Amino acid sequence: MGEPMEYASSGVDIELEGKAVASLISSLGKSVRAPGTFGAPVPVPGGFGGLIEFGEYYLALATDGVGSKLQIASEVNRFESVGIDCMAMNVNDLLCVGAEPLAFVDYVAVPKPDPEFHKQLGASLSEACRLARVTLAGGETASLPDIVNEVDVSGTALGFVAKGQQITGEFILEDDVLIGLASNGIHSNGYSLVRAVMKRYQHNYLDDLPFDRTLPNGQQALSFADVFLIPTSIYCDPIVDMLNCSKEIAGFERSDVHGLCHITGGGLTNLLRLHPTFGWTIDSPLPVHAEFDWLQQQGEITDWEMYRTFNMGMGMVIVVSRTVAQDILEWLNSRGHHAQIVGAVHNQGKQVTHLPTGSTYDAY
Amino acid sequence: MGEPMEYASSGVDIELEGKAVASLISSLGKSVRAPGTFGAPVPVPGGFGGLIEFGEYYLALATDGVGSKLQIASEVNRFESVGIDCMAMNVNDLLCVGAEPLAFVDYVAVPKPDPEFHKQLGASLSEACRLARVTLAGGETASLPDIVNEVDVSGTALGFVAKGQQITGEFILEDDVLIGLASNGIHSNGYSLVRAVMKRYQHNYLDDLPFDRTLPNGQQALSFADVFLIPTSIYCDPIVDMLNCSKEIAGFERSDVHGLCHITGGGLTNLLRLHPTFGWTIDSPLPVHAEFDWLQQQGEITDWEMYRTFNMGMGMVIVVSRTVAQDILEWLNSRGHHAQIVGAVHNQGKQVTHLPTGSTYDAY
Repeated sequence: MGEPMEYASSGVDIELEGKAVASLISSLGKSVRAPGTFGAPVPVPGGFGGLIEFGEYYLALATDGVGSKLQIASEVNRFESVGIDCMAMNVNDLLCVGAEPLAFVDYVAVPKPDPEFHKQLGASLSEACRLARVTLAGGETASLPDIVNEVDVSGTALGFVAKGQQITGEFILEDDVLIGLASNGIHSNGYSLVRAVMKRYQHNYLDDLPFDRTLPNGQQALSFADVFLIPTSIYCDPIVDMLNCSKEIAGFERSDVHGLCHITGGGLTNLLRLHPTFGWTIDSPLPVHAEFDWLQQQGEITDWEMYRTFNMGMGMVIVVSRTVAQDILEWLNSRGHHAQIVGAVHNQGKQVTHLPTGSTYDAY
Repeated sequence: MGEPMEYASSGVDIELEGKAVASLISSLGKSVRAPGTFGAPVPVPGGFGGLIEFGEYYLALATDGVGSKLQIASEVNRFESVGIDCMAMNVNDLLCVGAEPLAFVDYVAVPKPDPEFHKQLGASLSEACRLARVTLAGGETASLPDIVNEVDVSGTALGFVAKGQQITGEFILEDDVLIGLASNGIHSNGYSLVRAVMKRYQHNYLDDLPFDRTLPNGQQALSFADVFLIPTSIYCDPIVDMLNCSKEIAGFERSDVHGLCHITGGGLTNLLRLHPTFGWTIDSPLPVHAEFDWLQQQGEITDWEMYRTFNMGMGMVIVVSRTVAQDILEWLNSRGHHAQIVGAVHNQGKQVTHLPTGSTYDAY
């Protein structure tokens, strides 16, 4: 055993990363596209996706990569999840502004082209496109032997939303209800810490799994790799359809959905991106997957650290009017999605509180 | 001195790359978006950009990276061109389908965040957005210390074109005229060969330049780095405005432009992407920049290899009706662009012929 582990000590300098990004942003100028014309930028709080004007629509772009989860995939030479992870990280961000994803392009940097890797990646992207209901509109494979040691996979998703239909968090009200959508597993964040835990105990990713875990496909996981490479949930189904529901038929409509939050790196602190002043209480969290418990125990990781690093069983939060919360929940459950009411919005300071562990967060 | 050098021996296995990409493509399924609906794919020959349906418009996405030019930037720690290179590689591809670029997102993978690098990159992206007239709609910086040794920069551009206004090459006619637009320099292709030549002679990128070269800004280049890091030309100006010209005012219109070809990796062979059967003769090429002559001499590279690796002074080819070629040329020149009539389309077999060197190409 050793020191309690945390994300920042696992090789990611969050502060330096923040400084670097701030430095990039401060160097940017204003857009040359004037407000009201095609391509003009539309500021959206929270920054899950950037919107630009396009006639009666807004178009949205999101770009992100799979990150260090790829290193586990490379180590065990299994890439069937990678395209889905990459798609999910991007389209789930688009959904948060109320945009419907339309198309995707992938960018792959490899030390050396490998037809077997590309075949697995192609199959994974194909499945990802089906799940996200998008068209693969292009892609690039770059051979960069001196720049990359192993594969890096990123992508960009394009979505759209009718003007006035975007979701910005501005209509969130005190006492709104938080509906959590279950995650599939670790998704694509926190892998530096996962890898640090595995390294400390010199576990191999193909070792027998020391805990019970049923995979999303119903089979029993046998190895760490089986669990750590579970593909990230793509939430187009149910979110796109949920936003297109009508009051008459489903009892709720888009305007009842006040906010959407993709729980990515930063865990529960992502909620702080949704509103400038409101706070968030989680009192009935979704069940935590077994891998999170195991990682926490092995790494002697605090609850506080776990909930600001991992999704802890909840991949997406939907902020809805209390009056329709039950209707939305039933609709989600009837579509086969594991969702539950996990908490509520309050007006007692901009803070996230996870009641069962007593963890609080006031900075993203 | 040694063996004559060529691109394939400089560390890039073109055949394996082709197999890898073919392997990815063969694994892809059909789009879930039905023809006629938002997001449905629109096949465009040549593959410079993917189009998708969007009401009365097509949207286009292009994704590409800067490639091994980045390694020179990293070696001399000068990143002022990188954002422009990345933008250019993407928007110039969009232009080839007749699309107007609207927005851009960047993806940067770094071994470690570095505020100074990000500041330079931000300034470069800002200038790139101004030149390409696009909105920077987002971006991602990923710290991937075990995946990348040095920075990798890629990006995705979004453009649009009204339905029926896309440029596909299908209207190219025998005897159409080829107008070449001058390049700024090497742009962002062929750098594996550039680096191999520099390595053979153990030149340092900061060494005094052994040949004369005036930079695009009018100053004299002092070092190899000054020349090899000249930013790639962004052709939004003049191409977007050229395509919006009217017959009444300029003497030509969009329908007179039958094809657009971004001369990227593959050099003149890119022309073969424009049409399934026609051939291409270059009889009056644009002047070749001094760095190409120097590289050719140092590397004992054949003419044939040079013209299928580098742009050799011509970054974009515009295929136009002979009747309006002079009008378009004058319009381009009046806007300050160095352009000239470089050749013509023929119907004697799908082949590119560079007459002054006798080089011919029949495969992309």
